[in-house]
Amino acid sequence: MPTNQQIVLDNRPQGEAAADNFKLVSSETPALADGQVLVKHHFLSLDPYMRGRMNDAKSYAQPQALGEVMGGGTVGEVVESKNPKFAAGDKVVGMGGWQTYSVVDANQPGALRKVDTTHVPLSHYLGAVGMPGVTAWYGLVKIINPKAGDTLVISAATGAVGSAFGALAKARGCRVVGIAGGPEKCQYAEKELGFDACIDYKLHKDSASLGKALKEACPKGIDGYFENVGGMVLDAVLTRMNAFGRIAMCGMIAGYNGEPVPLTYPQLILVNRLKVEGFIVSEHMEVWPEALAELGTLVGTGKLRPRESVADGLAAAPEAFIGLLKGKNFGKQLVKV
Amino acid sequence: MPTNQQIVLDNRPQGEAAADNFKLVSSETPALADGQVLVKHHFLSLDPYMRGRMNDAKSYAQPQALGEVMGGGTVGEVVESKNPKFAAGDKVVGMGGWQTYSVVDANQPGALRKVDTTHVPLSHYLGAVGMPGVTAWYGLVKIINPKAGDTLVISAATGAVGSAFGALAKARGCRVVGIAGGPEKCQYAEKELGFDACIDYKLHKDSASLGKALKEACPKGIDGYFENVGGMVLDAVLTRMNAFGRIAMCGMIAGYNGEPVPLTYPQLILVNRLKVEGFIVSEHMEVWPEALAELGTLVGTGKLRPRESVADGLAAAPEAFIGLLKGKNFGKQLVKV
Repeated sequence: MPTNQQIVLDNRPQGEAAADNFKLVSSETPALADGQVLVKHHFLSLDPYMRGRMNDAKSYAQPQALGEVMGGGTVGEVVESKNPKFAAGDKVVGMGGWQTYSVVDANQPGALRKVDTTHVPLSHYLGAVGMPGVTAWYGLVKIINPKAGDTLVISAATGAVGSAFGALAKARGCRVVGIAGGPEKCQYAEKELGFDACIDYKLHKDSASLGKALKEACPKGIDGYFENVGGMVLDAVLTRMNAFGRIAMCGMIAGYNGEPVPLTYPQLILVNRLKVEGFIVSEHMEVWPEALAELGTLVGTGKLRPRESVADGLAAAPEAFIGLLKGKNFGKQLVKV
Repeated sequence: MPTNQQIVLDNRPQGEAAADNFKLVSSETPALADGQVLVKHHFLSLDPYMRGRMNDAKSYAQPQALGEVMGGGTVGEVVESKNPKFAAGDKVVGMGGWQTYSVVDANQPGALRKVDTTHVPLSHYLGAVGMPGVTAWYGLVKIINPKAGDTLVISAATGAVGSAFGALAKARGCRVVGIAGGPEKCQYAEKELGFDACIDYKLHKDSASLGKALKEACPKGIDGYFENVGGMVLDAVLTRMNAFGRIAMCGMIAGYNGEPVPLTYPQLILVNRLKVEGFIVSEHMEVWPEALAELGTLVGTGKLRPRESVADGLAAAPEAFIGLLKGKNFGKQLVKV
């Protein structure tokens, strides 16, 4: 059996996450038992939720155990199978974690899924046609539930979730305004992703200034907001929400280090009769088939052309992950294992 | 026609509302036109939402115009009628405002409603069997939507909304925990209103301390919260919410003077996948008949025995209103006109 390179959580962050919270180790992959499959990973997905799991605090996910392989989504290829449903060469998506190989009990429902790479590149099954894409779909369709003509806003607009959100919202006849960091990302959102406008939050020193930019970009107010970041951006958006607006709360990168990121005027939720709803896409597996079908079609027909930031080699994962938390990635952050 | 005493908004508050924002004036009641009814008010309702209308700011309600009679719910008796549906002596509920008489165009839908005082005292149509009661009903049934065994919490527990909420929630088999100010109110909530427990927030200097008290009173966590106050109380409740909890946001007395009352950890909405929804009961008239029927039965059968604070005479309304905003009332705040 091949030697497996693994990255484990060595110690928990005090404040910001750092590369030395992780450790690279080697191990032998065990022999397969009946029903198991050995998968060689091609790409590892890096996602903001992983930061939450590094804390030893009550959250929606169990904390990542110390000394164990970091969890995470992977795509790869079956190299050996003792399961009749999988054969060597099959392209698969699963939760293989931060390592070069994984042994998967493929009879467990949802553990491993065969994918078709005819029209969709394998890596996109970790992004637009994977968990981030379904996240965008759920927040848009199930929480924001827009009608044609609504104005929608999303933060972290050029990320994996944001770019899928843009395409899904345009397909429903909405005006879509992104918020992103820096002129390059904003230009990409408008020119390539189809956003009607994109605001560079780095040009605004406070929520009042950002609120003015939102007022210009959203002359009819904001009907739906997809929240990925929290803090100043959420404060600014709240001041521009229309009555009966909906906010899908998906991420709060600003709060992942455990510090408070206060919402300054929660009374606006009342004044504007808003609905604010937090969600975790893995708790809504019933929507995945419908969402993945739409996302696959958008990618296959070229209506969604997601960008990827690819770090080279498993050892580069910690630095790439820390960069992701600081917004240094451009599009979906992957590691080429 | 009789002389009418009226209280008008004379000037807008700078910060806290004060008695000299109001002015008492007299006028003659005009002769009735066809379809109109002259109502002599018995009781005027004082409600926290009125503070919001005193500001000249974007809100769900139009600002109260300067120099005009303060709006507000009233119950009273028809003294003269040019409308075939009403006769002298009829007991009625309407939006007569802060004055001793009102002339009502009784053909306007919803402007005036005849009520039966056989089992329900007239004044309760401004409280438990009126807008505050329906407010409690809507937040409980339509937003929190509890199942038997859920733990529910409400702030301002002994007020008109809170006492109705307690009875409605107990009728659905829930554990109901109140938050109120002072031992007298807490004892009343537990002994008379049927709350399973009531926490005196005045014993707690910060949200961490209040959170500990909530942990003791809600050993299985909190499934639903009805928000009347904001600030420290909301912060404390958020730390004890169960996954998929619901928060009905009805009032934010803490924010009525326009200052920020930050929500310290909005990321808890995400972590616990909460739904937070603001609402205004007057926008949901479709639920009123069902809600009023249940509330009338609870009062008529003695299962809901709401308390009232009654100020004596129209001229006492401004001071009573300011007391209400500071939590000095005990139960529904009325003015005996």
